[in-house]
Amino acid sequence: MFIAMNRFKVKKGSEHDFEQVWLTRETHLEDVPGFVEFQLLRGPERDDYVLYASHSLWRSEKDFEGWTRSEAFRKAHAGAGANKPLYLGHPEFEGFTTLQGISAEGA
Amino acid sequence: MFIAMNRFKVKKGSEHDFEQVWLTRETHLEDVPGFVEFQLLRGPERDDYVLYASHSLWRSEKDFEGWTRSEAFRKAHAGAGANKPLYLGHPEFEGFTTLQGISAEGA
Repeated sequence: MFIAMNRFKVKKGSEHDFEQVWLTRETHLEDVPGFVEFQLLRGPERDDYVLYASHSLWRSEKDFEGWTRSEAFRKAHAGAGANKPLYLGHPEFEGFTTLQGISAEGA
Repeated sequence: MFIAMNRFKVKKGSEHDFEQVWLTRETHLEDVPGFVEFQLLRGPERDDYVLYASHSLWRSEKDFEGWTRSEAFRKAHAGAGANKPLYLGHPEFEGFTTLQGISAEGA
């Protein structure tokens, strides 16, 4: 499995606008080959921002890379530049692979 | 759902030792109330470190906090201080809650 994460430092006062951009967008993700799951996460509050992360799970890194070169990706990110003033700096991208997984009994 | 993440900047050359500490430990997690899933993740390589993350999923933040006060937690972290030279600085803890989830068709 491959996890693609983007971290956003959202300015205090812009949390609602940032969430609305994500919650109302068309993701076009459901039918992308190798896509497993997406989550929008709200993280800790710091002095001047709230940390958010977009978190998507893929069958493999190759599937994720295929998506970033697809028409679905282009559509999902159309207009993303318009939202820049909502967060500090650039989103930080980090890709992860699973080394060990443990599940609850019966899960 | 609540996601508890710890980020570790592991020094170049210490990756194998760091992974061994995690892969050989007793987690005592399976039976903890509210525990759903744990993953050890290997992330991007930077100039002087490799980013790793421990990533655990809980039914609620309350369940996670209950675990941090439990005997199982104390056991799982016994001796953790001994591994400090493997990474730069302190692990960074971040807790997240899910705002939106999208799953693949049929998943």
